[in-house]
Order: sequence, then structure tokens, then C-alpha cells
Amino acid sequence: MKIAIGPSSFASADKTPLEVLQSKGLEVINNPYSRKLTENEIIVHLQGVDGLIAGLEPLNSNVFQQSTDLKVIARVGIGMENVDMKAAETNKIKVSNTPEGPTDAVAEMTLAAALSISRNIVQANDGLHKKQWEKSIGMGLKNTKILIIGYGRIGRKVADLFRTMGAHILICDPLVTKNDLQSGEELLELKDGLNSADIITLHAGGNNPILTVTKFKMMKKGVVILNSARGNLIDENALINALDSGKVASAWLDVFWDEPYAGKLTDYDQVLLTPHMSTYSVQCRKDMEIAAVKNLLRDLGIK
Amino acid sequence: MKIAIGPSSFASADKTPLEVLQSKGLEVINNPYSRKLTENEIIVHLQGVDGLIAGLEPLNSNVFQQSTDLKVIARVGIGMENVDMKAAETNKIKVSNTPEGPTDAVAEMTLAAALSISRNIVQANDGLHKKQWEKSIGMGLKNTKILIIGYGRIGRKVADLFRTMGAHILICDPLVTKNDLQSGEELLELKDGLNSADIITLHAGGNNPILTVTKFKMMKKGVVILNSARGNLIDENALINALDSGKVASAWLDVFWDEPYAGKLTDYDQVLLTPHMSTYSVQCRKDMEIAAVKNLLRDLGIK
Repeated sequence: MKIAIGPSSFASADKTPLEVLQSKGLEVINNPYSRKLTENEIIVHLQGVDGLIAGLEPLNSNVFQQSTDLKVIARVGIGMENVDMKAAETNKIKVSNTPEGPTDAVAEMTLAAALSISRNIVQANDGLHKKQWEKSIGMGLKNTKILIIGYGRIGRKVADLFRTMGAHILICDPLVTKNDLQSGEELLELKDGLNSADIITLHAGGNNPILTVTKFKMMKKGVVILNSARGNLIDENALINALDSGKVASAWLDVFWDEPYAGKLTDYDQVLLTPHMSTYSVQCRKDMEIAAVKNLLRDLGIK
Repeated sequence: MKIAIGPSSFASADKTPLEVLQSKGLEVINNPYSRKLTENEIIVHLQGVDGLIAGLEPLNSNVFQQSTDLKVIARVGIGMENVDMKAAETNKIKVSNTPEGPTDAVAEMTLAAALSISRNIVQANDGLHKKQWEKSIGMGLKNTKILIIGYGRIGRKVADLFRTMGAHILICDPLVTKNDLQSGEELLELKDGLNSADIITLHAGGNNPILTVTKFKMMKKGVVILNSARGNLIDENALINALDSGKVASAWLDVFWDEPYAGKLTDYDQVLLTPHMSTYSVQCRKDMEIAAVKNLLRDLGIK
């Protein structure tokens, strides 16, 4: 059987996932470009192929109709926006993803960003590389109030990490009750959370904006916003206005309204920007790739 | 009574420490410059003064002989290199410091630096601010081996934080036995620690170099070095050679051989540099300043 690889980075951090496929006697066809494949390219890539280890390439009805051997899609990651699930069902293609894989890496990246902002790491490092010795007092995380919007797998792990740092944990999630909370966590209505938080971090699903003009008005002056969930959860113009007015002191964005992002926020030095790479750690890529390989083998009936 | 303030940043993050002094009816004289005072300046500053809240200004025999009213020095911080303790004793000046104060903040900054390096935060942020959308896979801390050299207050706290991140904790400290360790920690000889660690972090005292040419040879290729303890613990040229050869992939330095530092490492983009500000967080400054104020009041016999 032939297996095509979608993500250009597959097995680049660690060869194990590739070796598992090869050890089953499968013929593995790598992504021939070092970037996301277009619709036409993925169609060519899938000719004669039984299973796909999928990245973010478009997997729609047209692609499925022209890839008649394709039986299994194993997505490396959680998001399924690039997969037309109904069309997959119609074409009898089994689809899986790796919901557990990114949790630790996204929570780690969220803490990395929060610490970088709250201890002035980027500014201090830039200054000293220009031979400017200028100390500044950062906020730090100890005794700050962090509002976690969305208390799923990632939200819970973020809560664990920030609790270790000595932060007070506030939770907002309409699907959560007090019984779901861990010790020391406080469940609040969104408006109450927004007006007491020093840091607000988004770990919710959906594509409807949560942080709108009205919501920014409810926040404390000098708040820090973190978003590693989805770009559309924040109204971009409302965020820019809140940065201009000083209501929002700083923000970290790993996800954007359009990706690759090259918009207005690139002009804001106080905003930390990373190119959708919260899951880009060696351990996480390896964990997710191995999970995807296992899903692929299971759905192809290979033991 | 008159109290002089040494550190230019005293009570700038939070007014409470200053208010405590004033509530006791003390006359408080602030640092008139927004920087560290010279020997001549501190002598002028101490005329008619009973107690000093001290920063890093020189407090030597000459200063004490010319400051005849001075009875108490309460240092904000741990290090006492700027205080001639024998001369203080001769002049019957009581001296205190705040050993507990910096622990959380230094450990927090060490984690901030490790996460920044291991998730490529600085490079990704620089790139995206130049509208370059370039993902890179970072090491992450999960399942990495971190060697903690010096297992005092700060070393232990660093161990706690990195354990939460999923790292394996290796300890090297000649004064520590296995009974002192926490669960999951491994005590090693320095050479064994050096040749298995992915990250090495210094939390030792003293001024003798620990990481010398010989020690760099023992390390794994691609190791990351973190130093928030003292500049002299690392041989600067040995570090530079190890960076040039690729033996050391990256480093974070918050302390230097000469401060303010403007040396060769400012040319190394892969090295994270911060200007001796591990204790510069709002909470830490407040904690240490309040501790120093309490020490000062106690030593002046004020209740």
C-alpha cells in the first residue's frame, strides 16, 4: 500500500513516526514541496495512494473524487477545517485526528508567551544586544489574576502551569460547573472575569468573536491578552483600538484572522507575535505524528 | 529619625514599603539620582541619617567613617559584595539582607528564559514583526534533561517549575545528599550531569568558575546554558568558543563578568541577554522591600 505525507515537517524532528510506517512495509511518499500543498498539488500527490497523513492541505469533495484509491485520512493535529467531513463520508474515507497531542505544547507556549511579556524578555534582550543596559520591572505571574476562557484539555493544562507560578486562576466556560473545577479555581461569568483579570487567555472553540468592542470595555486597564486558539475569537480592530488607548498593555497572538498574517499588529512592538507554532515542539510533533500513524494503521486494518 | 533610600527603584512598583516607613514617623530621603550612587554621593546622602535601605552602592570603611549617625543598613536583596561587613562591625552598624525575597522571581525568570529559548520566541517574534511567516520547531521542555547546579532555595524552586513542565531533573551540588532530594530528582557528579544534560542552569554561590574549557568539553552538542547566579561562574571565552563550535546551541545570561555588560556576546543572536533583572518583578520588589523595611525597623528598635 502507498501512504502520502501532507505536512512538510513530518518526521523532521524525530524519524520514529516515518520508521513505524516503513516497518509495516508501506511505501511512503513525502511532500515534494516544503510548504502546504495546493488543491491541484494534493490531487497529484494522492494518485494511487491508500492513506494520507494529513496537514492543513485542502481535502474537499473535488480532491476525493479525483483520488479514487484514498481510504483513510489521519490528520496530524486537532483542527479539521481543511477536511470536508461530509464529502469524506460520501466517499467512504475514514478520517481521524489527534486531540490529545497538542495539549502540553500549546499550554507550554502560552506560559512561554505570558512569561516573556510579564518579565519584559524581548525588550530587555533587544536592548542589551544594542549594548543598552536598561533594567525594567516586569509584572511577573505570582499573585496575578489570570482568566482562562475555555476550560477544555488545553485550558485545564494552562491552569495547572499558571497555578504553579503562583497566579490566581479564574475560569469562564458556559459548559463547566463548579464540580468540574480543580482546587483554588474560581468559576465566573464572562463580564466578572473580564473586569478582574490581569491576563486573559483564550482556549475556546468556535469561530464567533468572544473579545468584541463591548468586552474590551469591561476589562481592566493594562490587561494582557493571549490567544493561541483561533484568530476569529478576537475582533482585530477592537484589539488595535484597545492597544492604542492603553486599555490593553500587551498581547500575544499565535493565531490570526488571515494566515500568513502581515497586518497592522506587526507595527506594535509591545505585541508578541508567533506564526501559528504553538504545537511546534519536538516532543509534540513526535507525539502527534505517532498518534496519527497509529490512527492510520488502525483505519487501514494494519496491525 | 532619618532614613535614606539607596535603590533608585525603591517603592516604584508599589508604594506600600514607603508608606510603612512614613507611618512610623520616619523622615525618608529618596535617592536623588535615578541610578546607583557613587561613593561620594552615598556619603553626602548619609549625612544625619540613622538607617539606610541599601541597594548596590559602595558601603565601605571610608563611607562609614564619614557617616557618623548611621546605625542600620537593610539591604534589599541577597548579595552583600558591596558591603564591607568587617568595617560595618567596627563601626557598630547592624546589617541585614532579604534572603527569601528573590527566590520565586529568579526561578520564574529562569523558566521564562528557558521557554523563550526552547520555543524560539524571540526569533519568531522578530520575524513576524518583519512580516516573515516562518514556523520553526522548538525543543520544548517536556522530556528534556535539565541539570541544576546548586540546589539551594532558588535551585529547588527551579526544580519545581521545570518538573511541572515535564522535564527530568538532574541535581549537582557537593553539599547535598540523596536524602535532600525531592521525588523524581537525580543527584549526579558534575561530569555525569554535564554529559547528559540538554539544559544546564547555574544557581550556585561563590565566584570561582564552574563552567571552564574542560567542562564545556564534557557537554552534549547542542546544550543550552542558563546563568542567573554570577557572571564569574562561567569562563566567558570558553562559552564564546563553545557557541562558535556549535557545542552550545544557545544560552541565557542575566549576570556578567563586568556590568553593565557590552561585550562580545551582544553579537550572538542566539544568546538571550537580560541586564541583571531576574529579581525585577513587581511582586518580588515589593516582597524584598517590605522585608528590608521590617529588618530596618527591627534593627532600629522601632515597633
